[in-house]
Amino acid sequence: MQSFIHVPKDHPFPIQNLPYGVFTHHNEAERHVGVAIGDWILDLTQCENLGLLPKFGEGHLFQEGWLNPLMGQPPFVWSALRKHTMKLLSINEPILRDNVVLRDQVLVPQQAVNLHLGVRIGDYTDFYASIHHASNVGKIFRDKDHPLFLNWKHMPIGYHGRTSSIRESGTPLYRPKGQSQNPVTGAIEFGPCVQLDFELELGVYIGFGNELGEAISVNEAAHYIFGFTLLNDWSARDIQRFEYQPLGPFLGKNFATFVSPWVVPMEALEPFIAFFPKQAGLAGYLDQELLPKWDVSLEVYLQPKNEPDPILISQTNTKELYWTFDQMIAHHTINGCNLRPGDLLASGTISGESSGSYGSMLELSWGGKFPIPVGAEVRTWLQDGDRLTLRAFAQGDVFRIGFGDVVGTILPPK
Amino acid sequence: MQSFIHVPKDHPFPIQNLPYGVFTHHNEAERHVGVAIGDWILDLTQCENLGLLPKFGEGHLFQEGWLNPLMGQPPFVWSALRKHTMKLLSINEPILRDNVVLRDQVLVPQQAVNLHLGVRIGDYTDFYASIHHASNVGKIFRDKDHPLFLNWKHMPIGYHGRTSSIRESGTPLYRPKGQSQNPVTGAIEFGPCVQLDFELELGVYIGFGNELGEAISVNEAAHYIFGFTLLNDWSARDIQRFEYQPLGPFLGKNFATFVSPWVVPMEALEPFIAFFPKQAGLAGYLDQELLPKWDVSLEVYLQPKNEPDPILISQTNTKELYWTFDQMIAHHTINGCNLRPGDLLASGTISGESSGSYGSMLELSWGGKFPIPVGAEVRTWLQDGDRLTLRAFAQGDVFRIGFGDVVGTILPPK
Repeated sequence: MQSFIHVPKDHPFPIQNLPYGVFTHHNEAERHVGVAIGDWILDLTQCENLGLLPKFGEGHLFQEGWLNPLMGQPPFVWSALRKHTMKLLSINEPILRDNVVLRDQVLVPQQAVNLHLGVRIGDYTDFYASIHHASNVGKIFRDKDHPLFLNWKHMPIGYHGRTSSIRESGTPLYRPKGQSQNPVTGAIEFGPCVQLDFELELGVYIGFGNELGEAISVNEAAHYIFGFTLLNDWSARDIQRFEYQPLGPFLGKNFATFVSPWVVPMEALEPFIAFFPKQAGLAGYLDQELLPKWDVSLEVYLQPKNEPDPILISQTNTKELYWTFDQMIAHHTINGCNLRPGDLLASGTISGESSGSYGSMLELSWGGKFPIPVGAEVRTWLQDGDRLTLRAFAQGDVFRIGFGDVVGTILPPK
Repeated sequence: MQSFIHVPKDHPFPIQNLPYGVFTHHNEAERHVGVAIGDWILDLTQCENLGLLPKFGEGHLFQEGWLNPLMGQPPFVWSALRKHTMKLLSINEPILRDNVVLRDQVLVPQQAVNLHLGVRIGDYTDFYASIHHASNVGKIFRDKDHPLFLNWKHMPIGYHGRTSSIRESGTPLYRPKGQSQNPVTGAIEFGPCVQLDFELELGVYIGFGNELGEAISVNEAAHYIFGFTLLNDWSARDIQRFEYQPLGPFLGKNFATFVSPWVVPMEALEPFIAFFPKQAGLAGYLDQELLPKWDVSLEVYLQPKNEPDPILISQTNTKELYWTFDQMIAHHTINGCNLRPGDLLASGTISGESSGSYGSMLELSWGGKFPIPVGAEVRTWLQDGDRLTLRAFAQGDVFRIGFGDVVGTILPPK
């Protein structure tokens, strides 16, 4: 399938992707929902206004300027909308292709708009689903021979994160302040975080949701996923380390989490599912015959202030996750906890087995012991002025499904 | 001050209280905001419609049927509204007192309505601010000689809870299912929770909020508190105990949290502040000259299915909290984390020093070792059919400021 809009090979947004986002025109306040196609956006809010979309359900889906009304629809509506949107953009469909006036009304160059967080996130849960990451953290902080807690292979471990400080890519990131214990003197000190870190994660947005008291079965769970986001769970390791016992991470994490501005639809990634053998000995509610994992390439770039270009510091793949998102959803709801449209479930840091595939500075510098080269400089933790970029894409033979980068530049404490 | 509505002595809702809530008339969907006065509710949504309230700011405050628009106003608006509402209800004010038609339009008997969760809670944070509770938990689970972690006296420890499963008093509570480790055999087992517990907590709702990156100073923090709620943080101890390392409580908590339907305004509790000497050696951002603590009496009643009456099983006071809410707010934002109108910050379990003042079954039965008598029965953990009631009030010489009970009945797993 091809669009009448030219999309170069290996561009992140071919017609097979069509990720959802929310934008405003420069100097305007009105939020529009759209899908990315090449360097353009098809404005769905406008399309709805102009009667170019079929009517789904009772109300309008795109007049609020948030993705939640669409997310709350049943999956067949997502499919029908996606099919219709593809048709509108197809090279074989004259409606927009041959009507320059209509095209001007509904197609917007990406450079002419500001992208925003498109989802009202009710709850944000962060898991810990990469065995390499969990093992590395255990080895660095606790016991190098027994890095995993007993619970880790029995269930996807997770915790609730902060929703108020979730921001779209490109938001300024002020270095947080907090208390930590001096590793040399043992003194408790207050000041700017000195072990600022990123975490490379994939997230899913929940669609329809479940009622309080009802569990979602692991084999049904995929139907509850609306789409995917790339996510940077900024972390202040020194603050986190001092505070985390016994209730888990708090100020070490909740100062900011950045997501990609585009939400990749579940269906766009379906060609990139690979099946893996299941884990042994799980409770029935987590038992999947085969584990569906997404083949999504992940890259981390770091650009110190004085470097001319971003430098690749890590490369991995979502296949490295031990737990599937289906298992995370089944676990999250087995006690009756309800998920709502727009809820965000993130994988936790994704790390591969080798040191070039770790998804955090904590692991890349092995707890700060071994600085890594970054161009002409070295880094253990992130410095003021550093610009960090996360990138994700599923690579096919003829097209690539990209996520839109997650970018953040570190600023001194406010 | 007295109202023309008769309020018996020691009723929880005298004119000095006027807690905010949201209700619907039986068999109607429209949400109304109101304040409780005796056994009645003054319908503020109706009052606004009828022009009985001064106009605050640009839009309407009570047409949405949620408290958030009011919460997002600056504190002087809360004060002005409260003063005006008191005047409308005063025995000296003829507007309602002498106009039976108007009175019928804006005064509703509480028994004629359903009460609802009145706040759209963006984020819910649960602290661990009672030293007796934290010490008891440490003694039961870890080290009886060193029950507190090093961090505990340096900062109010807290974690993010689940907002989707916060419900108003009276919602059915289904026993959750989950994995736990058999304490005798060590086997990992899946099934209904066998250590179901409550936690007695006080919560504050945030008013105006702060911007991402900006901290709230401890001396300004009180201005950010809109009002108070009583809260039961239902807990599944066996699930919690197996899952909580290293990221804290998750499924052991997120199946349900119940709050009182009424939000007690900050100003109603101001006469009940007592000042205590400050903690020693704190970081400057937590340093308060004197610690303002609220003198609120707390009671827990348990009524097994076959008991005719609720039985008092614990009695304590919010003065027992080691950390003030001001300190919790200052700590929460010191890293730049933003609070939004309607965010909920809870104290964590409030326990006194003696065993009759513990705020959870975990402590009352000392980890399940010593069952407590409850009428003709005994309890270590909560059983199906048990009805648990939390009650809170500040007792003055001539009036009492009550919270409205938080009630929950345990049902078998769904």
